[in-house]
Amino acid sequence: MKKKLIIGVIGCGRIGRLHIENISNHIHFVTIKAIADLYANEIKAWAYELGINNVYSDYKKILNDTEIDAVLICSPTDTHSKIIVEAAKAGKNIFCEKPIDFDIENITFALDAVRQSGVKLQIGFNRRYDHNFKAVKDKIAEGKIGDLHIIKITSRDPAPPPIEYIKVSGGIFLDMTIHDFDMVRYLTGGEVTEVYTNAAVLVDPAIGAAGDVDTAIISLKFANGAIGVIDNSRKAVYGYDQQVEVFGLKGSIAISNDTPNSSVLSTEEGVFCEKPKHFFLERYKDSFVAELKDFFEAVCEDRETSVTGIDGLKPVQIGLAAQKSYITNMPVKILT
Amino acid sequence: MKKKLIIGVIGCGRIGRLHIENISNHIHFVTIKAIADLYANEIKAWAYELGINNVYSDYKKILNDTEIDAVLICSPTDTHSKIIVEAAKAGKNIFCEKPIDFDIENITFALDAVRQSGVKLQIGFNRRYDHNFKAVKDKIAEGKIGDLHIIKITSRDPAPPPIEYIKVSGGIFLDMTIHDFDMVRYLTGGEVTEVYTNAAVLVDPAIGAAGDVDTAIISLKFANGAIGVIDNSRKAVYGYDQQVEVFGLKGSIAISNDTPNSSVLSTEEGVFCEKPKHFFLERYKDSFVAELKDFFEAVCEDRETSVTGIDGLKPVQIGLAAQKSYITNMPVKILT
Amino acid sequence: MKKKLIIGVIGCGRIGRLHIENISNHIHFVTIKAIADLYANEIKAWAYELGINNVYSDYKKILNDTEIDAVLICSPTDTHSKIIVEAAKAGKNIFCEKPIDFDIENITFALDAVRQSGVKLQIGFNRRYDHNFKAVKDKIAEGKIGDLHIIKITSRDPAPPPIEYIKVSGGIFLDMTIHDFDMVRYLTGGEVTEVYTNAAVLVDPAIGAAGDVDTAIISLKFANGAIGVIDNSRKAVYGYDQQVEVFGLKGSIAISNDTPNSSVLSTEEGVFCEKPKHFFLERYKDSFVAELKDFFEAVCEDRETSVTGIDGLKPVQIGLAAQKSYITNMPVKILT
Amino acid sequence: MKKKLIIGVIGCGRIGRLHIENISNHIHFVTIKAIADLYANEIKAWAYELGINNVYSDYKKILNDTEIDAVLICSPTDTHSKIIVEAAKAGKNIFCEKPIDFDIENITFALDAVRQSGVKLQIGFNRRYDHNFKAVKDKIAEGKIGDLHIIKITSRDPAPPPIEYIKVSGGIFLDMTIHDFDMVRYLTGGEVTEVYTNAAVLVDPAIGAAGDVDTAIISLKFANGAIGVIDNSRKAVYGYDQQVEVFGLKGSIAISNDTPNSSVLSTEEGVFCEKPKHFFLERYKDSFVAELKDFFEAVCEDRETSVTGIDGLKPVQIGLAAQKSYITNMPVKILT
Repeated sequence: MKKKLIIGVIGCGRIGRLHIENISNHIHFVTIKAIADLYANEIKAWAYELGINNVYSDYKKILNDTEIDAVLICSPTDTHSKIIVEAAKAGKNIFCEKPIDFDIENITFALDAVRQSGVKLQIGFNRRYDHNFKAVKDKIAEGKIGDLHIIKITSRDPAPPPIEYIKVSGGIFLDMTIHDFDMVRYLTGGEVTEVYTNAAVLVDPAIGAAGDVDTAIISLKFANGAIGVIDNSRKAVYGYDQQVEVFGLKGSIAISNDTPNSSVLSTEEGVFCEKPKHFFLERYKDSFVAELKDFFEAVCEDRETSVTGIDGLKPVQIGLAAQKSYITNMPVKILT
Repeated sequence: MKKKLIIGVIGCGRIGRLHIENISNHIHFVTIKAIADLYANEIKAWAYELGINNVYSDYKKILNDTEIDAVLICSPTDTHSKIIVEAAKAGKNIFCEKPIDFDIENITFALDAVRQSGVKLQIGFNRRYDHNFKAVKDKIAEGKIGDLHIIKITSRDPAPPPIEYIKVSGGIFLDMTIHDFDMVRYLTGGEVTEVYTNAAVLVDPAIGAAGDVDTAIISLKFANGAIGVIDNSRKAVYGYDQQVEVFGLKGSIAISNDTPNSSVLSTEEGVFCEKPKHFFLERYKDSFVAELKDFFEAVCEDRETSVTGIDGLKPVQIGLAAQKSYITNMPVKILT
Repeated sequence: MKKKLIIGVIGCGRIGRLHIENISNHIHFVTIKAIADLYANEIKAWAYELGINNVYSDYKKILNDTEIDAVLICSPTDTHSKIIVEAAKAGKNIFCEKPIDFDIENITFALDAVRQSGVKLQIGFNRRYDHNFKAVKDKIAEGKIGDLHIIKITSRDPAPPPIEYIKVSGGIFLDMTIHDFDMVRYLTGGEVTEVYTNAAVLVDPAIGAAGDVDTAIISLKFANGAIGVIDNSRKAVYGYDQQVEVFGLKGSIAISNDTPNSSVLSTEEGVFCEKPKHFFLERYKDSFVAELKDFFEAVCEDRETSVTGIDGLKPVQIGLAAQKSYITNMPVKILT
Repeated sequence: MKKKLIIGVIGCGRIGRLHIENISNHIHFVTIKAIADLYANEIKAWAYELGINNVYSDYKKILNDTEIDAVLICSPTDTHSKIIVEAAKAGKNIFCEKPIDFDIENITFALDAVRQSGVKLQIGFNRRYDHNFKAVKDKIAEGKIGDLHIIKITSRDPAPPPIEYIKVSGGIFLDMTIHDFDMVRYLTGGEVTEVYTNAAVLVDPAIGAAGDVDTAIISLKFANGAIGVIDNSRKAVYGYDQQVEVFGLKGSIAISNDTPNSSVLSTEEGVFCEKPKHFFLERYKDSFVAELKDFFEAVCEDRETSVTGIDGLKPVQIGLAAQKSYITNMPVKILT
């Protein structure tokens, strides 16, 4: 039987609470001993209901608790690298939400601390655990389509986040496309060497006023010679659009959107199918459970995590290059 | 190069005119020398435009023209068997629209005349030449699904014909389902031995008042042990619904409806596909050309036609049995 | 907050254990206090792991436990009606697996006992809680397709059960089609008044030797004039085939099979999609949780259950009529 | 009734012969009086069979024939602009295959000659007449998806042409992508202002040795602010891949590939659909007829053609810019 893990969760915003509820409901070999959030008082009732009695406003209490094996870092992005360093020094295994940081030096510093301490680190790229993306990865790995030539990702949100969020998001490339940058690495098993960004403000001028774009096509070159393209929009009115095609010498693999059900309604007006599942909480529901299970198992079994620190660093490098490409309207190389 | 065939067409209603135009446009080794229709005057201008100069009100002029190799019989159903006999005696090869007749004795008499004269006869079951149905037939023949267990046909019209037509149509089973009875024989290569009809008047009470039904489920048994079911409606508001599934020991083959184009529109309201092609003229367009080509080639190459007199007889037998089953609410056996 | 319910489970075969695990993992307002099974010793370790300490070989200990609010009856079918009566007398709310019994008198007797005791009863027709079937039901209820004309169900298992199971199963109509008989009632909201069965032994002669059939087409008439058809096979080599179409005056709603993922692989050999989810445990996973949740909520909220005793009785009546129709090769009426 | 047009065809390679046969079979208000080809002797038998008695090796005989209203220019690309000028001076209406020329000055000179003579000119961008692309265009025009944000085209051939052809093709961007450059103009109704090309030799090193690429992703900016991307491959082993998605403020329209039939085969190995139609002759069959009909009607009705000289010029400009972008690895602006 699996070892029981004792963990703490740092940051209880939307994603933190999602992880906590998923562990409570689905991962029985893990006990959440403590959680920390600046607004500890506001989440106490909810926490007690789940049987979590230690709710701190200071996350250091978690790091100082020697009974705790691992922490989930779900606090704001600008605190990630600092807390990683502290947690590593405290000997905690770490699951950290993406992105690690917007600054490469901070990330490198944090990864060094992890390396020196020997703790495990996994980054929250949950889409790697999605049934559809996994099917693409598996079929590529089985050689079904031979050498990869073209990889295409469509990734569009149903609606833009609030402008206040946009302002601190790091920009579309580090906030939204970062998942797609991870996905091209995951699917191809190769590194991006150059990006060219074609982007615009088409959804909402306020996004432009906040210094960001809302619509983008990012052209990619890979170390192995393949080429790729990602297209993003902050607003697909029909729902969360998450599609991938990988095309190779021997064929193509494509995935389309999941829908709430398979019903098709045919009337005089037309033939109606269901829209895609609305947003990431519905679409990637199971993947959030699976990524944590995998992390906890890596800790229990003392093996390498499936999404390493390097996997957290690379998409930020690509995202920064994409940003620079947009600003300069020039292709930008990425050192690998 | 192919021999040039000289032909005549008897009956220039909708289907007769369709055949004539298809031959003019697509079948260059066939010359339409003469056409006959009770309302000859009304079609003369149209015929001349197509280069057909002999437009008769009496079809016997066609039968008496020794230069003519073959005739298409597109007149009302109640004249088919009589004209078949006359055409056979005149030594003309015959393409006759379905059904041959509503009366088994008349059909038998006509088929005897054909046999004695040695002319060729093909019945107008055009769906056998459809790309979708043919794909099903071919895959069955290749053994892709092994022994057949279940055959299912959905066949629904977009709207009922005028009540005046219903009254002389022979009833839904001989007018509409007859195509499906032919299709089960074509696809399975076997004979129907028993039918049970479950039918109702749900679309329009006037159809019931005319002594017919408009909605039906016909359960079938086949000589080889397989079972089947056909469902019909006179009114599918979304268009002409023509689907088949054949299920066997090793799998299943299904075809769905053709659409005018493959566009999918995704909006806030939903995901919209195209409706099926509207009705048989659009849906089976190419099959009407193909069936005639095949008939004319059978004549030129002096080989058996692909849809024989027996293929014309059997669906009428099944149709009459389906009618009897509806009236008696009992399964009805068919002698094979 | 929801009242905490205390329950017991009677019968811990495959379906019993499934329910127990679902409650442990997903339904936190319910506590399983005790379980009973003839082979209690064999399941003790598994039960303790789940925190269930009372494992009895005699289910009466559960009925006698006054702390217990409700029982799940998951024992063999021939014990259902007897235990229902006892549980009702003991004042326990009852969730009972389908079918209640193969004998109409036994069912009637059990339903009377339930009525007299005033406890709640829900029958385990889990498919009513499936996302796809529910979508069909909802769209019908919203009037999207108007008056119903034709209802069609395809329901095929991936492989037949062992012959030993077949022998005690009650036959395909009471074991397998019973779910479809429930589904037509659920979707149409109407009663079946007549059935005609067309069935055969095509999959395995041993099934015939055991007195059952393995392939069937069941034609249905409904009280409101609609007609329907169900087709079953014990062996669809490509997986669990669960499809429905409901056709009405204003259109049609169809659902197709769920698949493990949406990947499409295109190669020189062809275009490959995923097979349907393998069998009912994968396909109806969520529905098993949802049906229990709904039952427990009905108990807590003191409202009518969603699948009543009558909903348990009717499909058995239809199943018996379908059996009789197969034996007599005649349509059989059902009193409603 | 339509005026009868008398035409000549210059160049009887694959596309020339296709047009000639299409006119013979489908466009009855047009008479092909004469055809010209350097290898006149080799096509005489074929031409006589179609009733074309004037087969010249010198196309000027066609230009000098005062009875001829219009010419189709289907000769090699490097002769197009010269023959356009001569035909315009001879007062012939002109249908010219794409591309007009690889040289912008030559094109401009030819278009000037057309303008001065007042004859009509249509360029052979047949895909504008395809049912799928037309559906996209129509729905955009109806405002179904609002302002356009992203346009995506996938355009892949089943196999590369011979290296000898590649060498004289003008390169992938002027030979293959030129159709896609036309399509983005047709669908968006707007002009491309900048391109960035990401391309590689992944299919066959011999293509690289011939100075061309075989795999490309071309990023586009439009005058109205929208952005777009085209991906090309010379070798999609599963067939001719021709897909488009246009994404806008109110939704998205996508088209997928046409297949020979709609059959789906489900077996133990998987679920198999048909591959796309093999190549452009199958896929765009009807569009080749439609484009000529439209051209001939424009001549008869004395109206503007649907694909003008400017429509011939623009895609060449974009193609040359795409080429330059590939060579310089920089985005390249296009003057509009």
